[in-house]
Amino acid sequence: MKLTPSVLNLDFAETETNITRFIKEYVSNSQTKGIVLGLSGGIDSATTAALCSKAIGSQNVLALLLPENETKKQEDIDDAKTIAKQFNIETQIVDITTILEDFYATIPVYDQKNNVCKGNIKARTRMIILYYYANKLGRIVCGSSNKSETLMGYFTKWGDGAADMLPLRNLYKTQVRKLASTLGIPELIALKPATPALWPNQSTEEELEIKYETLDLVLYGLEKLMTTKDIANQLNIEKSVVETVKNRLLNNVHKQRQPITIKLDF
Amino acid sequence: MKLTPSVLNLDFAETETNITRFIKEYVSNSQTKGIVLGLSGGIDSATTAALCSKAIGSQNVLALLLPENETKKQEDIDDAKTIAKQFNIETQIVDITTILEDFYATIPVYDQKNNVCKGNIKARTRMIILYYYANKLGRIVCGSSNKSETLMGYFTKWGDGAADMLPLRNLYKTQVRKLASTLGIPELIALKPATPALWPNQSTEEELEIKYETLDLVLYGLEKLMTTKDIANQLNIEKSVVETVKNRLLNNVHKQRQPITIKLDF
Repeated sequence: MKLTPSVLNLDFAETETNITRFIKEYVSNSQTKGIVLGLSGGIDSATTAALCSKAIGSQNVLALLLPENETKKQEDIDDAKTIAKQFNIETQIVDITTILEDFYATIPVYDQKNNVCKGNIKARTRMIILYYYANKLGRIVCGSSNKSETLMGYFTKWGDGAADMLPLRNLYKTQVRKLASTLGIPELIALKPATPALWPNQSTEEELEIKYETLDLVLYGLEKLMTTKDIANQLNIEKSVVETVKNRLLNNVHKQRQPITIKLDF
Repeated sequence: MKLTPSVLNLDFAETETNITRFIKEYVSNSQTKGIVLGLSGGIDSATTAALCSKAIGSQNVLALLLPENETKKQEDIDDAKTIAKQFNIETQIVDITTILEDFYATIPVYDQKNNVCKGNIKARTRMIILYYYANKLGRIVCGSSNKSETLMGYFTKWGDGAADMLPLRNLYKTQVRKLASTLGIPELIALKPATPALWPNQSTEEELEIKYETLDLVLYGLEKLMTTKDIANQLNIEKSVVETVKNRLLNNVHKQRQPITIKLDF
């Protein structure tokens, strides 16, 4: 198999139609009144918001902006508001700073130097707020995880990965960018470096040590059961890079599944 | 099929052996250092703690007591400590009252009269604390959901239902009680009315409007594809009771699965 960028080509207008139909049917089947979603100012949540608004009407979508002091950037808040305005979506800002500080103060073993532990509290607190609104309004929560980050386990279990519906879950990041363009998401938002905003200046590509253009093709190759050697040769990268991606993928499968239990016969 | 209490009979000594082997293998395969679990003073978490301690050694199990002012009962804390002492498990108490109060104060649409919305914050906050310890200590989180409550959706999505492992997930509540007895859990704990402690004096059986002895047989009958009429006749209960259980089961399936997405071919 040839591993070139064209393997990830899609008819993005058709993809938009399919995903909006999926969202509409899901909300209708769940017999709920609409959608609550988080809007970070990044491309994934912008694309998700646009799709939801097109699928069920913007009046049935509520976007929450959930900033906190440590990672807050006015640029992100402005970008989130731009998207909400463009797609006519109501927003509400809930600053979670004091809740987070209370977690830090309450946990006896709290370690301020451990960014991962701390970041997970942030992602899970955002989930709690989204679900509060969804519970209260009789709506579902729509998440914005993409396929690249999900496969790499680059999300918080029961945090940003926890939602009722994930419309972008089967699109690689580079595909989300093209879908965003089809939807008319401003280029400036599409071009911002990806970050889950769990700590200041966090960069997804720096942390994963690979560009999305390469990562997505490596993941596609692995999914098609190509050998690590073949993938490395075709993409002209070190075999160790492919192996790192593969190991990360295998070690993070648990984050994509429900809790494991034992089968008992009776 | 005859729907009598004997259909739920198990060799509980063998069940104990199977579940402890499962826990041991899971922890070993996950290459982690042990287990973190919540201990509420109720029978499910007591049974889970006992099984974990027998499976991997009590020195590798940490039990967290997570009280909060509104539902705190000294009796529950004492019972949790009794279990920890009996199975030689280390405990840590983390009072989550101030975190909860901060959630209530922060959420603009917070509605103090809505017990469900509020209760979900509690269950999810407990999850965040359990995972903080698990992250920090390089351990996994073990939950204590049983089959009866899981099938009825009687748990908080991404709250008490969110864990890495659920050893009791396939045992009905009445079976958990018998396993608890086999493990030597004190009768006084086994006999306390079931409650998720999301609001004061909350009772599972009152909320579900059915006794576990009946519920478990209804669920078993439904699982074996018996008709609602046949189940009602055999158990000598109203058909409407069976239908209520069936509807609740069907409406809550979403709480047992990962977020839904759309399949895309490329």
